[in-house]
Amino acid sequence: MKVDDEAVVEYFKRVADGLEIDIMIQDAPMSTTPLSVPLLARIAREIPQVNYAKIEMPQAADKLRALAAAAGPSLPGLFDGEEAITLIPDLEAGALGTMSSCMVPDQLGQIVRDFHAGERDKAIHAWEDLLPFIHFENRQCGLRATKVLMKEGNIIASDRTREPVGELNPHTRAQLVEMAKRKDPLILRWA
Amino acid sequence: MKVDDEAVVEYFKRVADGLEIDIMIQDAPMSTTPLSVPLLARIAREIPQVNYAKIEMPQAADKLRALAAAAGPSLPGLFDGEEAITLIPDLEAGALGTMSSCMVPDQLGQIVRDFHAGERDKAIHAWEDLLPFIHFENRQCGLRATKVLMKEGNIIASDRTREPVGELNPHTRAQLVEMAKRKDPLILRWA
Repeated sequence: MKVDDEAVVEYFKRVADGLEIDIMIQDAPMSTTPLSVPLLARIAREIPQVNYAKIEMPQAADKLRALAAAAGPSLPGLFDGEEAITLIPDLEAGALGTMSSCMVPDQLGQIVRDFHAGERDKAIHAWEDLLPFIHFENRQCGLRATKVLMKEGNIIASDRTREPVGELNPHTRAQLVEMAKRKDPLILRWA
Repeated sequence: MKVDDEAVVEYFKRVADGLEIDIMIQDAPMSTTPLSVPLLARIAREIPQVNYAKIEMPQAADKLRALAAAAGPSLPGLFDGEEAITLIPDLEAGALGTMSSCMVPDQLGQIVRDFHAGERDKAIHAWEDLLPFIHFENRQCGLRATKVLMKEGNIIASDRTREPVGELNPHTRAQLVEMAKRKDPLILRWA
């Protein structure tokens, strides 16, 4: 379904009506209704509860930068929305944080805190070191990566995912676990 | 337009009719006609000129592995099709090479040669070192990255791209050039 800008604004007005908590808008490429920068900025201005947006589009950094300029203080919570595979460019463009998976939130959180504390080089170095791993998750595994590692770390008993997402190919699974062990994430140590 | 498997096979048969050169099939996610593994394997078996396929789909490594098993020697030329941002997983899955941009073919070619020469660790290390840069190209710049660097390297006079691809955001451009200088690619030294 594809709806026009007026219908999108009306939709968020109805969602927000009487709501006391904040709203985060997900700007996802799989949506058939595109959310332009002017539309997102307008929603943020007209609907006070809309304080966050997670941007998952190609060239996310450009969109974040344009959105920060267009929406200003009415949209303070801009987030990278792609499991942190574009984290540093997005932070440089004005993102406050990242909507990552649960695979390495400990390490990603540290990178975000370091970046905002002015430790840019440290954050870049740590992120570049982590990129092959989170990129492997994003491109080869999807949401199955977190489940597999939670099982490997004895946090959950089964890593089965619902249909239509099938089991991870055994080669891909083995590579993921091998990469994870090299990164020593909390997910493998916590339980 | 979306066509069924029979129509895809018929299309490639007509393209191949009388043709003496090899054909590479591009398996691209933007296509509205999906090319399944059994279909690609069938095309490779029935049409001798089809000897190459470049795989650009999400979870490319899984598809390459399945395709290598299904098509066997009738499809010897499997390629990673995503500017090498999934190069090592794809090589591990049976890819022969990569369809990269013209940004760092010198460095990517060396990685592919090292991998096939059995220097796996060296190839992985070099690729992981290059990943933030080629990933920045893929996610933030697209085809504009090569043009910008060819201009910076005095190979071409203008980095303008045709519509609808607009100019690269100046911040994004500056970051790209900064990253490129750290990698010392041929594109900046050749002219």
